[in-house]
Formats: sequence, structure tokens, C-alpha cells
Amino acid sequence: MALVVQKYGGSSVQDADRIKKVAERIVRTHKEGNDVVVVCSAMGDTTDELLDLADQVSPAPPPRELDMLLTAGERMSNALVAMAIHSLGVQARSFTGSQAGMVTTSKHGDARIVQVNPQRLRDALDEGAIVLVAGFQGVSQDSKDVTTLGRGGSDTTAVALAAALEADVCEIYSDVDGIYTADPRIVPDAQRRETITYEEMLEMAACGAKILHLRAVEYARRYNVPLRVRSSYNDKPGSLVTGSIEEIPVEKAILTGVAHDRSEAKITVTDVPDTPGMAARIFRTVADAEINIDMVLQNVGRTSANRTDITFTLPRSDGPRAVAALSAAQPEIGFGEVLHDAEVGKVSLVGAGMRSHPGVTATFCEALSNAGINIETMNTSEIRISVLCRPDQVDTAVSALHAAFELGGAEQAVVHAGTGR
Amino acid sequence: MALVVQKYGGSSVQDADRIKKVAERIVRTHKEGNDVVVVCSAMGDTTDELLDLADQVSPAPPPRELDMLLTAGERMSNALVAMAIHSLGVQARSFTGSQAGMVTTSKHGDARIVQVNPQRLRDALDEGAIVLVAGFQGVSQDSKDVTTLGRGGSDTTAVALAAALEADVCEIYSDVDGIYTADPRIVPDAQRRETITYEEMLEMAACGAKILHLRAVEYARRYNVPLRVRSSYNDKPGSLVTGSIEEIPVEKAILTGVAHDRSEAKITVTDVPDTPGMAARIFRTVADAEINIDMVLQNVGRTSANRTDITFTLPRSDGPRAVAALSAAQPEIGFGEVLHDAEVGKVSLVGAGMRSHPGVTATFCEALSNAGINIETMNTSEIRISVLCRPDQVDTAVSALHAAFELGGAEQAVVHAGTGR
Repeated sequence: MALVVQKYGGSSVQDADRIKKVAERIVRTHKEGNDVVVVCSAMGDTTDELLDLADQVSPAPPPRELDMLLTAGERMSNALVAMAIHSLGVQARSFTGSQAGMVTTSKHGDARIVQVNPQRLRDALDEGAIVLVAGFQGVSQDSKDVTTLGRGGSDTTAVALAAALEADVCEIYSDVDGIYTADPRIVPDAQRRETITYEEMLEMAACGAKILHLRAVEYARRYNVPLRVRSSYNDKPGSLVTGSIEEIPVEKAILTGVAHDRSEAKITVTDVPDTPGMAARIFRTVADAEINIDMVLQNVGRTSANRTDITFTLPRSDGPRAVAALSAAQPEIGFGEVLHDAEVGKVSLVGAGMRSHPGVTATFCEALSNAGINIETMNTSEIRISVLCRPDQVDTAVSALHAAFELGGAEQAVVHAGTGR
Repeated sequence: MALVVQKYGGSSVQDADRIKKVAERIVRTHKEGNDVVVVCSAMGDTTDELLDLADQVSPAPPPRELDMLLTAGERMSNALVAMAIHSLGVQARSFTGSQAGMVTTSKHGDARIVQVNPQRLRDALDEGAIVLVAGFQGVSQDSKDVTTLGRGGSDTTAVALAAALEADVCEIYSDVDGIYTADPRIVPDAQRRETITYEEMLEMAACGAKILHLRAVEYARRYNVPLRVRSSYNDKPGSLVTGSIEEIPVEKAILTGVAHDRSEAKITVTDVPDTPGMAARIFRTVADAEINIDMVLQNVGRTSANRTDITFTLPRSDGPRAVAALSAAQPEIGFGEVLHDAEVGKVSLVGAGMRSHPGVTATFCEALSNAGINIETMNTSEIRISVLCRPDQVDTAVSALHAAFELGGAEQAVVHAGTGR
């Protein structure tokens, strides 16, 4: 008997009809002889509506109370799905994060999972029930207060349960058919990948692919939980995230796809004294303002004055605050100025295949050049090449790279497999 | 330093504006030097909306899951009020029933409070915080599942907390100014009672006065918790429920008021064999159908055949089920027939004063007769006279009794104090 964990996102449970469809799928999985554990996000826009309600009564709600409020959303959706399963004749029981043994740190709004004690869930499964667990929440190990897990919280809940229960697979359901070689809305002949390694998925997620949260992928990688990304609207197999790039024979390695991100801004701190500790002080300044940095670029010192520029990207909405924090620290650190580029586009090619194919970088740059796109910054990892360009050039860049590396398939973006070079 | 418990009903917290007004009142109470514990119902129609959502996904939701769903409502309202208090500069922390130590029986949808362990609340109060507790909910002592408390659950939560914390008063807020000698919408010169004993309030609640639940009043009586019924829309002192009729000097006893109830139906089981055990079997039949009986009347056997009629009232919606259950049992019990009066009006005069005034019953009947109202049944307790009449005669009956006993005041129904005879 296999144990399957399934996670359904907000749009999959957005109303009574979707909830009933989801319940049917869950019961089908159960009838195939599996133990089933389900994690649901809040219905549709519930979380945003609750945030709006909070905003109406208080400009700066205490984080503890915000967590108390927001967790109502997942509580409701999981109870409703349990009811729908019950009306199909199968026992189902929903649990809060706390009841499911999700122990977390105390940081409200951004708690991290510290431990999972799934005994109560095991008991329910042993009684033959389908188990539902409210995603995005846990209980603080210190205060016993309810916490929410921050971004990617529901995906992470599902993966953490899969790990703790030693599930055979963790299926993440949304309204997309799987992981594609590029966003099908930009590149109509993008193909669905059958399998992707954890490292490639990490890069894709870090580069803007919104289908899985970085955090959940990393958790899955660490505990070796196979992740299947599927649509709750059809029965297609989706994409399986499993295995390491180390396990792929070099000749078989391919390119996973092209990811893009339009949500960032770029900041360049100019003329930073090229001495030890300067970069640290710049990043500490930004960190103290509770801003998360994405990509960092520092090139060698340019001038005889031993100065260098440091560039980093960050969420667009954090741009002004980062500028303010750095400007305030300028007299003390002693850099030149803070250049703020409020909107940038980031385009990335990801794949284990590039390790064994030295021409990839050249092909990459040629494709962008031929498409008339200026590369503003570039940085790479073992399996990724990322560039920044103007946001309005992103679509063109994605299409150009996708075509240059022949990632497209003969059919429209619902075709199985394919190769890349 | 006094400890005040305040309960706010659904309409008092129905939207962001009302929530902010309630927060202001709470903070005012706190600034007067009191420890404050607040219990809020769900916002406005939330509970009904959740029930509707449940109905859409399942015709007969499992009670455990229904409790999981419904408790989201109180969770949200108390977190929002805590946020609003915080934005006024005062620390506030909300707790679920479970976190507040509300231990209950296991009966989902109708759990009873078994024990209250308020230590976590005490700690928060000692830190100077205002404490909020989600009403209408607790945690099962057996399964550790979340339970809801059934009718009057939020009032009962507030009273139970007041008892456990030895509060100086428990204030129940709604949109009415207090307890009146009659419904002011029927009797414009009805007066607000300054004080009422527990026993009189119990009778008023049992007879249809909707302002406090019977259950909460009984809990308050048992633990001697003073209850103050007030409006959340103004600063009037409302009515205080405290003390026993035993404590009132006989000459000072007055009549509390006239209550009415239009929500009931009446069933008469005719020609019941007048032998021991018959009544028990009839009521066991109705009880097994999970129907609550209100008022029971059995008069002496009328005929030489040693038969009698048994009449009882019950919630209107339960009428058909009771008829079905009794009809099914008729062959076995052997009564005549089941007469079902789908709509009745109940009018009651309540007050300790009637114990010392023998003419009350006569005046009562005369007043109704003069108003052209036929008394269909009558029964009494030490401090109550109740009759059944046609529903469309209820208003006339209430007005006639109110006038006959001179319960009205010189001013309109917002006047303080007054006397009755």
C-alpha cells in the first residue's frame, strides 16, 4: 500500500464545485488502494480578503494576531474538502497544523518547520480515514501559539508531511499541467518535462518559475521526497521532480528550460571600497531592513582607486526601502552612490546539460544578440545562466533562447518529453 | 483592580467599523484600571455563511468537520478585535477556546463545558494584556478535537470564563439597551429593568426573551456571576442580573415583565392510557428523535376510561418529525391521536412579585379576556404564568398584560427604572 500526499492550491479549491471535484480525485486515489494525506490552501482569494480585513481594522497588525486570523482560511477549506469526501462515502478527518504535529519556530508570518510529529495522522490513516491537513501553518515550539509559514508554506507543509510519513510521492496540484521548458503563454511550443532533477528545479524556482516554491523543493531534495507537479483539472501525469544531477549520465543531461522573472528591481552600490568587510556591511544594512536579496553580482575592482560596484536584485516593492537604508548608511560605509533600477527583467536558462556542453554560453549570448537584446548583467551557476535585461524584452528573450536551444516540440505546449542540447 | 468579562455578539462585530468601536470600548474599560477578558461571536452572518458553504459540498456533513469549519468564524473576529485594540496602543492577545482551557464533552455541535483551565489567560492578564477568547468553542476532553457549544455558546463561554476567573461582572453586549418589561417593539412604553434576579431571568429566557440564553443564565446563577446586559451602541448601564428571589424582601418583589414566543408549535397526544409509564414512553419517543420539548401540560384524566391528554410545545420546525415519531409509536403505546398545531403563540408574565400577590392570576386572565383573547392552555411556576394563544394575538396579549399590571413608564422605552405591582 502506497502513501500519497496531495497538495491542492487555492484555485483548485476556490468554490464548492471545485471542492467536490477535488474530493472525487482524492477518493479515486484512495480507492486505488493508497493511504492519502491531503493538504489544502485556503479557498481562492480568502487569504487576501483576510489581509484586507486586517488592514481595515489596523495599519500594523501584531504578527501573532495576523497568524491567528489567516489560519482560519486553511481551516475552512480542509474541513469543507473533508465533508465533500465524506459525502462520497469515505471517512475523512481534517487537522490543523498544530494537531498534525507541525512544530515550528516562533517567527510569526515566516515560521520554519522544526519538527513533524505525525502520530495523530498515522492513527487516523490506520483507521482507514483520508487525512487532511491545513497547509501554511504550525504551532510555535516556544509559545504554543499558532504560526504561519510564509511564502511557499502550503507546498512546504505537504513536502514535510511526505517526508515525515515516508510517502511514496508528494503531488502538487495547481491549474498548470506540469513544468514546461518555458512559460507556454510566451512560447506556444514549450513542452512539458517528464522528469527534472532537484537541482534543476531549484534553479527554475529561484529564477522565477512559479510552479513550486524554492523552499519546498529544497525540503524535498533533502529528504528525497519525489514531487509530482500536476493539474487538478485533468488526469495528465504532469512532471516528476526527483533525483540529483549527479545521477544523470553526462551524455544524457539536457536543458530543463527557460525561466523568467519580472518581479524584481536592481540596485547597484557604486565605488565600494575594495577592502574586506565592505560587502558584508552593505548586505547587513539591507538585511537589517528585513529585505531578501536574490541575485548578487560583484565584479573585480575596476579602477586604480581600488573600488568596485556591487549589484543585487530584490523584490520590486522592497526597492525604495533598500535605497533608504543604504543611503542612510552611506556616510559610515563610504561608497559612491546607490543606483536604483526600479524594474528589471531576469531571464535564465537552466539545465544539467550545460555542464557538458561548453558552447552553451556562446549560443546563449548569440541568441539574445540576434534578438536585439542587450545583456545588462550576467551570472551563472553550474546549471544556470541568468541575465538581466529590460522588462519589456523578457518575452523576446525567452522565445529566442527557447528556439536557439531547440526546446520546442512539434506540437503545442501539451506534448510529452522532448530533448534539448 | 476589577476583572471584567465582556461578550460581544455578531452584530456588534459585524464589520471593520463596528470592530473598531468595540475596541475603543474595551480599551476604555481597560484604562479605567480593569483587567479585561473579551469574548466575541463570529462577525455578522459568518456562521450562517459557513453553514451554507458546508451545505453546498455535503448534505450531511460529519459533525467533527462542521465544528472545525464553524470555529473559523470566532477565530477571525477575535483576532481582528485584538488587532484593533493593538492599533489603539494596548497589548491584546486572542485565544481559541482550546487555548483558553475550555474543556468540553465530545458531542460535536452541542458540547457542554466540563472544565475551564484559564492559566494561560491569567498569565496574559498578568502581563497587562487584554485577553480575547473565541466564543462558542472548546476542545473535547476525549479526542482533543475542536467542539462547538451549541445554542447560547458564546454567552456561556463568557459566563464560564467569568466564573473561572472570578470576575466582578460579565457584560453581555448586543444591540438592545437591556432587559425590558416587554418587547419595546410591541409595547412602546416598556421600561428597562435595572436589576433582575437569576430565577426571573431564567423564566424570561425560557419564555422567549431572546436577550440571554437560558444556559448562560443558569451557569451564572450556579457560580454567582453578576451579568450585565448592555448595548454596544451607547453607554447606558443596561440591566444587571444578580441575586436570588429568596433574597428579595417579600414586599419589595415586583413583576419583571411580559415575555412572548412565536417560534413554537403545539402537539397534543389524546386519550393516553392514564397508567404509570405512559407519559414516559411518549416523551422517550420524542427524545429519541432528538427533539427538545419546552412546556408540558397534562391535566387529570377526563373520562371514566381513565384516559388523559398530554400537550407539549416544541420548536416549530420539529413539529412534523415529532408527529411522525409519535404516529409510528402509536400502535405500541396505544393512545388516541396526535394533534399538531403548527403555530402557537406563548405569552408569559414573569416576576417574583406574583408570589406575594394572590390576585395576579385573576388580573392576568381578566386582562386577556377583556382583550378578546382565548386562553388555550395555561400553566404556571412560582414566578411565572404562561398561556398559549393564536400567534396573531400575541402582540395584543402582551400589550394587555403589560398595561393591566402597570409595567409601563411615563416615557418611551428607554427610561430608567420604574416599578410594577
